[in-house]
Amino acid sequence: MKVCVLAGDGIGPEIVAEAVRVLEALRSDGLKIEMEPALLGGCAVDAAGVPYPEATQKLAREADAVLLGAVGGPQWDALPRPQRPERGLLGIRKDLQLFANLRPAILYPELANASTLKPEVVSGLDILIVRELTGDIYFGEPRGIEVRDGQRVGWNTMIYSEAEIRRIGKVAFEAARKRNKRVCSVDKMNVLETTQLWRDVMIELSANYPDVELSHMLVDNAAMQLVKAPKQFDVMVTGNMFGDILSDEASMLTGSIGMLPSASLDANNKGLYEPSHGSAPDIAGKGVANPLATILSAAMMLRYSFNNEAAAQRVETAVKKVLAQGYRTGDIWEEGTRRVGTREMGDAVLAAL
Amino acid sequence: MKVCVLAGDGIGPEIVAEAVRVLEALRSDGLKIEMEPALLGGCAVDAAGVPYPEATQKLAREADAVLLGAVGGPQWDALPRPQRPERGLLGIRKDLQLFANLRPAILYPELANASTLKPEVVSGLDILIVRELTGDIYFGEPRGIEVRDGQRVGWNTMIYSEAEIRRIGKVAFEAARKRNKRVCSVDKMNVLETTQLWRDVMIELSANYPDVELSHMLVDNAAMQLVKAPKQFDVMVTGNMFGDILSDEASMLTGSIGMLPSASLDANNKGLYEPSHGSAPDIAGKGVANPLATILSAAMMLRYSFNNEAAAQRVETAVKKVLAQGYRTGDIWEEGTRRVGTREMGDAVLAAL
Ligand SMILES: CC(C)[C@H](C(=O)O)[C@@H](O)C(=O)O
Ligand SMILES: CC(C)[C@H](C(=O)O)[C@@H](O)C(=O)O
Repeated sequence: MKVCVLAGDGIGPEIVAEAVRVLEALRSDGLKIEMEPALLGGCAVDAAGVPYPEATQKLAREADAVLLGAVGGPQWDALPRPQRPERGLLGIRKDLQLFANLRPAILYPELANASTLKPEVVSGLDILIVRELTGDIYFGEPRGIEVRDGQRVGWNTMIYSEAEIRRIGKVAFEAARKRNKRVCSVDKMNVLETTQLWRDVMIELSANYPDVELSHMLVDNAAMQLVKAPKQFDVMVTGNMFGDILSDEASMLTGSIGMLPSASLDANNKGLYEPSHGSAPDIAGKGVANPLATILSAAMMLRYSFNNEAAAQRVETAVKKVLAQGYRTGDIWEEGTRRVGTREMGDAVLAAL
Repeated sequence: MKVCVLAGDGIGPEIVAEAVRVLEALRSDGLKIEMEPALLGGCAVDAAGVPYPEATQKLAREADAVLLGAVGGPQWDALPRPQRPERGLLGIRKDLQLFANLRPAILYPELANASTLKPEVVSGLDILIVRELTGDIYFGEPRGIEVRDGQRVGWNTMIYSEAEIRRIGKVAFEAARKRNKRVCSVDKMNVLETTQLWRDVMIELSANYPDVELSHMLVDNAAMQLVKAPKQFDVMVTGNMFGDILSDEASMLTGSIGMLPSASLDANNKGLYEPSHGSAPDIAGKGVANPLATILSAAMMLRYSFNNEAAAQRVETAVKKVLAQGYRTGDIWEEGTRRVGTREMGDAVLAAL
């Protein structure tokens, strides 16, 4: 299996290095894996003038999976839109047709205190957010800013076809089958025609999954319910824009976004794997970032793209073990636990493997 | 001053009745106010076939302010789109050009336990969300569902002009001047051109408010920060769609959405005032709903449309007093406090006036 490794910007290189070490350790134990580095985001802009250069496109297309750190940073914020680092991320998602973004929001018992929510509200939290990733207002045309009748106007287009809705719906229903068999589809059908179609298609699709319970929730209510009673959810499925907002809200319920991985899959289980957190420019280069979300993203890669459940679980078990042993990076540290840096955390995971 | 009173659906009639009693008590003390009832929402569909009938339009246009309970309920969910109760709400907002939605998220010290967040995270919470209410993807054209190349496609248009952004921005800056002088503008400028314009115009506008600090936050991060550290915010300003989501999330942080009022204002301080919560069909007619958000909405009406700060504060002080006295409806009840119904809560406020 070929993996394209995109360290990216900010803390990206540090955290990806630890995930690569974990994968190398598995390789010594027989895992067939080749890793090839390439540039995405701000580092690509600096080196090649664009955030998703052709060399990266070639490697990413040929690879079976992509491991990504994070992209972006203040030094690229003032660049024109096509050169911003996040364009690289949007570009690779669209180019590789990674339409299914899986974002687990899990509360690790050892980290229960990190949440800003009361323990009884979040203990045992385990939500899977399935976000559509290559459609919606993110990519809809027409879009732009222009002067009309003497004043500037900005506009974008939210758009979904039934085929796009059906394929992401399927991912959600299949995922629910392996979990607690409940899908909550989030829309704003009382206002937006796009999401009226979304709801209609989800209802049609649910006929194929009589064993899975489908419910619907308006996006404003979903944002509330995540705060009020997050444990009511099993799988949540929604569009690109609402998914962007709700998946971040759900991650933060755990208080430890430094622990949360994500997978973005195409129709053939080729995927891009990255931590749910950002590039954290403020702590970049200091060796203090938490590499666990990236290591857990590598585990998701083993599960979905390598179809190697055993290896995935081996990595996940190792991560749980280091938490149980009390190792903590600064973001999840609390009194009575052992504060370590990025590299030491990687060492601990390697030892636990 | 003429007030058009729209009881609406579900618990609407019960909670509005208590707010009306409070206003009548103030009238006995000299407040000049005339109240005229009319139909909006599902009750209007039942009586007149449409959710915002002409008779209501006429009264609402002539009035100086509108007091609303809530609209909607399951019995109207299957109706065609133009007849759904929420169309009435969207219709009156647009018709009266109520572009500025002010939604305070305040945690009353007596109700601190109601929050699902830890007390230290939310105690003293006092955010004002300023949501644009007559533009954005809510009203943007073109929109619809149609068959293209043999499959259904749904689409909507997000759109803002600089004039629309500027007028809501002004409301936010002016509101911040009376508070802690900080405005956080929420957008998704890294993806959406519409909100790139939003950010540009907010920056231009801020030149007129050197005494107010303007910051910017991406909507996904805002959804996280509300959970992580909500007290960092003073005034948040955002578009109609993001505001719908974030204002509900922020309300729920307090755990007592039954306490939160809202105002929707036009350019001349004519306004529609309604509780932040919905029509709660499950408890409708039982006399147990919390009328305080509606009573506090009446207080906002006195402040903004009547320009009568003294009367507004008199009502707000009475509400604080009944909380201090231990009166609680079911939604905010806890051990050691006195559980009362809608009417008794109204009685208590009247006594405290
Ligand atoms: C960086 C940005 C374009 C991206 C998005 O909005 O999709 C990010 O927020 C995410 O969720 O991966
Ligand atoms: C009922 C609905 C159309 C409405 C909205 O989305 O604006 C409601 O959620 C609100 O926030 O007042």
